[in-house]
Parts: sequence; structure tokens; C-alpha cells
Amino acid sequence: MTRPLELQKCKQACEILQELDIDAWLIWVRETAQMADPVLKLVLGSDLVWQSALIFTKDGEKIAIVGNFDADGIEDLKLFDQVSPYIQSIRKTLLAELERINPRQIALNYSRNDVAADGLTVGMRMLFEEYLEGTPFLERFVSAESIISKLRGRKISAEITRIRKAIEITEQIFADAVDYLRVGLTEKQIHKFFHQKMKEYGVTSAWEKERNPAVDAGPNKQFGHAGPTENKTKAGQLLHFDFGVSYQGFCSDIQRMFFFGEKRDIPEEVQTAFETVRDAITAASKFVKAGIMGHEADAIARSFVQERGYEEYQHALGHQVGRNVHDGGTLLAPLWDRYGESPRGTVEVGNVFTLELYVTTENFGQVSLEENIVITKTGCRFLSEPQRELICIPPKR
Amino acid sequence: MTRPLELQKCKQACEILQELDIDAWLIWVRETAQMADPVLKLVLGSDLVWQSALIFTKDGEKIAIVGNFDADGIEDLKLFDQVSPYIQSIRKTLLAELERINPRQIALNYSRNDVAADGLTVGMRMLFEEYLEGTPFLERFVSAESIISKLRGRKISAEITRIRKAIEITEQIFADAVDYLRVGLTEKQIHKFFHQKMKEYGVTSAWEKERNPAVDAGPNKQFGHAGPTENKTKAGQLLHFDFGVSYQGFCSDIQRMFFFGEKRDIPEEVQTAFETVRDAITAASKFVKAGIMGHEADAIARSFVQERGYEEYQHALGHQVGRNVHDGGTLLAPLWDRYGESPRGTVEVGNVFTLELYVTTENFGQVSLEENIVITKTGCRFLSEPQRELICIPPKR
Repeated sequence: MTRPLELQKCKQACEILQELDIDAWLIWVRETAQMADPVLKLVLGSDLVWQSALIFTKDGEKIAIVGNFDADGIEDLKLFDQVSPYIQSIRKTLLAELERINPRQIALNYSRNDVAADGLTVGMRMLFEEYLEGTPFLERFVSAESIISKLRGRKISAEITRIRKAIEITEQIFADAVDYLRVGLTEKQIHKFFHQKMKEYGVTSAWEKERNPAVDAGPNKQFGHAGPTENKTKAGQLLHFDFGVSYQGFCSDIQRMFFFGEKRDIPEEVQTAFETVRDAITAASKFVKAGIMGHEADAIARSFVQERGYEEYQHALGHQVGRNVHDGGTLLAPLWDRYGESPRGTVEVGNVFTLELYVTTENFGQVSLEENIVITKTGCRFLSEPQRELICIPPKR
Repeated sequence: MTRPLELQKCKQACEILQELDIDAWLIWVRETAQMADPVLKLVLGSDLVWQSALIFTKDGEKIAIVGNFDADGIEDLKLFDQVSPYIQSIRKTLLAELERINPRQIALNYSRNDVAADGLTVGMRMLFEEYLEGTPFLERFVSAESIISKLRGRKISAEITRIRKAIEITEQIFADAVDYLRVGLTEKQIHKFFHQKMKEYGVTSAWEKERNPAVDAGPNKQFGHAGPTENKTKAGQLLHFDFGVSYQGFCSDIQRMFFFGEKRDIPEEVQTAFETVRDAITAASKFVKAGIMGHEADAIARSFVQERGYEEYQHALGHQVGRNVHDGGTLLAPLWDRYGESPRGTVEVGNVFTLELYVTTENFGQVSLEENIVITKTGCRFLSEPQRELICIPPKR
């Protein structure tokens, strides 16, 4: 029961500590079946029942201090150099390990900005401080945000491979939908078709299945996270999808636009809107590269649509995708309160981002697209095949 | 898309605030698809993307302040009297609501003891304090532990019905296993059989599926949370299961002991151990009732086995079962560090507990049983059919 992917991420964690010159990173959790620190999926992939500490050091040491009944299972994974079980209280073993390592800093999983780096709960922090009372370690806590952001964001090739596969299946299902779609279907029927396809291809929903895919037919439905309704597809109108699947634990997240009619029937305001969205994404993709700050990429796309007379989109241009569809770390977002410090993060090689935005037409509702890219050494590469034209569904079938 | 169960729990939440004389309970979350406060399953059952506040008041008001794109979906659930969307920052709307309600206390979801009441992260707490800086509300935070413990612990009849159904299916699968089991099967084969049956009965695993059921064959495997191995069932030896399923979001958690041989072949030390475990559970079940503290029940069973010359079991006699297999709140546990204050909690009508313990034999490994009970007005009632005898599998098939 070895876990090659998790093993690589554990190794990467120690390398990042080395790079950031942080002595130790400590993941402090309990009863993770009920509420799991999001980083556990990266470096463990199993549940822990009693209070547990996973410690990674700059020198490459990986230590697990876990409850008695968890120890054998964790030992079996062969991720840690040392697995120390305890029975009544973790305190003594934890203190002994910290004294031995004597780290100048102990990075803990809390973050104002990044949910993916904010797994430590208030109660667990209280307990931790209690256990360490009277020791010098109390003064050495730092946030592990930068560690987690790099560990999660710098996808290794085995991770990219899985994301790419998730995207391929997503695109295949959109292709299958072309044959299925016709005028007069309800959003709910279409939603059901996508779920049958997911089952067929052996993937699961990348987010809450009731709202995945988002299916938005006709001009009057605001895009967002609301579920499918009895709203029907209509000739001469648009159909929008926001859809993602999870393949072997990794996600895709793609938006596509369909039109019910021949190409020649596409109203000019729809075509202009589509091209604006498509070209804003292209412009952003040409700009984005390692080293820039997230908000700089957002600004390119945002000003692109505004210069063409559209209102700005009310969300971020892009978020990272990985084990979660919203994978934390740097955001390609405007400098709004809601996004905290994440838009000031640096884009790094190996990051996988969405590029997504919408504009609103006068008579046909919103037009929205979303592509997935990976940051390379020289810029970025599309992982999805970008939508170049509205997908036209013949009106009479 | 109404949610009758969640609606009842929302109402129950306001009643509990009334009873505890706490003005307001505030659930403060973000990106719950990635890490969800465990109470959201009770009162919402959906995901929230942007920073969100769900407020319940003593006067029965239920308010949701959520991101723009979440608002329609939350509105549709009809759980809240008021759904207020925001775009750039939640701060203003949140402050306005708090000023209007002007609660003397604002209960937040943090708890030193109870993971099920400890959904607030350190980063979210920092943000909350930032938003409320300069207001009198900063001084009014209290822990919502008592609210959540009562809300989660006092199962309403629709909840008990689902737990009962989960238990029924668990017992049916154990019954099916009687026909399947034979000498020479590996733990992994048996594990696979249980998973086929879960699929057949349309239930999912109550915990990490690799470790559910725990299958422990023969004398040399320590019980616990380690997964099934290539270890084989043997004539004259025991087989132990710890198994739980999830039915419509509610769990069972049951341990059973099988013996490979005729009844007359059961070694005396095995029979004595079995009877001790069984009778310790019976003794505890006769004692446990509303109003006692958790550790008092544990002490009954613990001294029962010790008086019979066995070492004490190294875990708690019982935990609550519900939406989670470990459902938080009061524990029937000894007063060990590891259990914090939970053993000092009060047992209440409607609580569903496990009663579970093991003793160790000299030559045949451990003997362990686990039953599920519900606390009634007069004592408790078994929800599982308690195991009275070792289940004997004829040695030659």
C-alpha cells in the first residue's frame, strides 16, 4: 500500500522548507474523517483519528506522531521515516520530538488568505498552545501558507498527467453533448445526461454534483452556482455550461457556450460578446508567466473587456486547479477585499490555472468561457483546447 | 429543492439558543468544498464558495449572507428567512446585520474538545476579528460548543430512522457473510465481499473504505484501524469485524466476532473473554441514561473487565454516531488528556452512542464487540441486535 504520488509530495515539502529556510512544518490534526486539513490529501491520503502531528524538516526528516490504533496503517504507507504511536496523551512524544529537532520556526497551517493553507482550527490551536506552555516553542510559530502554496501549486508531472486526463474526459463529454443537445430540453435533463456520461467514463463530479455542470439555458438565467432548472433550450438562444470532473483525485474546470441555430443565425451582439471573451482569455494567456503577480494577469483581461464597452466580470480571472477545483494559492484576481492577499501571490512554473470570464449581452444573457492552462518555463500552455467558435446546434432535429 | 431534515435542524438550532439563552450563533466559513465546517451538513447541506455567514438567533431568525453567485442556490433551499448577497466584501452586510440584531453573545464554532464543534479555522478567525475591529462585537464571542453538541446529539426522529436503517443493512451484510465465510479466505478477500454487498444494498462506507470493515483474522493481528492483509482465516481461530455503512448521510458502527469451528470447539478462554465483553456492554447499557456524565458509563464497563482480571481497553466505551461515525459531543470515555472535556459532558435523550470494548486472551488475540444504542426518556434502547454468542462457522465447507 505505498503511495508514490504522496511520497514525491512529502519529498517536495522538505525541499521547499530548504528553499524557504524554514526548519520545520507541523501538521496538527484530529478526527480527519469529520473535517480534514486540506493538505492531508497531498502528503498522506489517509485519515487520522486521534490528535496527530506530522512533522517535516528542512533536513528531509518526516515524522508522524499518531494514536496507537492509527500507527500500523500509517507505517504501512512508508511515507514517514518514523511513526511514533501514543496511547493516553500525545503531549510527551510531541515535546520530545520538538526538543530533539529544536526548530527555529514551526510552520503551522493557518492562513488569512488561503483556505487551502488554513486547516488548523481554533480549538486545535488552543490545545497546541496548552501542550507547549512553558516551552520556548510557543514563540516560534509561523504560518505555513508559503510552504503549502508552493507544495500545492507546483504540480509535479504525475499531477499534470491526471489533470490533463480529467480535462480530456471533460472535453469528450462536451463532444458527446453535441449529438445529444436539441431545442426543447430542460436544464435538468441535460444535467442528467452529463451525469450519465461521468459514470460511463468512470469520473466523479469536481464539485457538488447538484450544481455540476451548471447548465444555463436562454437569456434570463444569471450564471453562477445555482442548480439546473426546468428552463428549456430555445432556438436562437445560447446554452452555457460550467463543468468539471475529478479523475484519480484531480480536477478539471471548463466553461463552454453553445448556440441553437446555424452559424449564420448568430446575432451580431452575441458574436461580438463571444469574440470579446475568447480574445480576452487569449490576451491574458499571452501575458501570464512565472514571476508576475496574480492581479496583473486579471487586469489584462479586465481592461480588455472594459475597453470594449462591457461591464467588468464580478469574479477572478483565474484560480488554481488540482486536487480541488479551487486549489488555493495565488489567484489571478483583482485586489478586492474578498480575495485577501492571494492576488499578490507570484505565479510559478507548474501552476495550473483557469482563465475564465463573462460579458453580458443586451438581449441574450451572459457569454462566458473558461479554459485551463499550465505555467511553463517560458509562459503558459493550454491544457484544454480553447473554444474558438460558438458550438452551433442545428435548430431542427 | 427543499430540505425537510435540514429545515427541522435549523428550527431546533433556534430553540437550543432559546434554551441556553444565547442571542446569536454565527457560522463563518469559505470554500466549503475544500474544507467544510462539520455543522454545515446539519443546517445547510450545500457548499458555499465565498466568505459566508449563517446567523441563527434566539428569536428564531435565520439569516444567510453569501457571495453573489451562491445566493440563488441558497435561496432555493428555503432554509433562511433572509439571504443577503454581496459582491466585493462581506464586511458591510455582516456589520449591518450584527448591528441590527445587537446580540449580547455571538457563538462561534470553536472548541478545544469537540472536533464536530471546531469548524472555525485560525485564518477565518483572524479575518473575522479584522472585520469587526472597532466594534463592540469583538468582546462578545463565545464558543458554540454547547449549541452544536445539543443540536448534533439530540437526534430527531427522521435522523434515528436513517441510523436505524444503516444498522439494519449492516446487520444484513453480517448475516450474508455467514454463508460466505470459510477457512482459508484472506482478510482482503473478505473485505472485498463486504464492499460488493455495500454496493448491492446501495450504501457507502461510513469511514475510509480501505479500513472498513476492519477485518482481523487469527490471533496475531492487533485490532485497530489498519487495513485488511493477506492474513487467512483459520480453523479454531477468531475473526473480528469493525464495520459501518452510511445510509442517506447517516452511519452505523458495529463490531462482530466469528469463530471457525463448532460451538463445542470454542476454547474456554475465548468463551470467557466473549462473555466478559458482552456482559460489560450489557452492564453499561443498564446504567447509561440521560443526565449522567459520559465518563460514569465508561467506568462501569472498565471496572467490569478489570474486576474479571483483564487489562483495561485502551479507548473509550462509546462515541456518538450520526452524520459522522464519530459524531462529536459527549463521549463515554475515561478522563484521559486525549479526550479533553468530552467525558464530562451530559448524556441526553436522543443521543445515539456506540458501546464497544475489547479484552485480550492469552492465545487467541483480542475479543471485541460494538453495539449501537439510543438514549430514551427512561434509559437506553439497543438499535443493533446485540451479539449474544460467537457466530460459529463450520470448519469444513
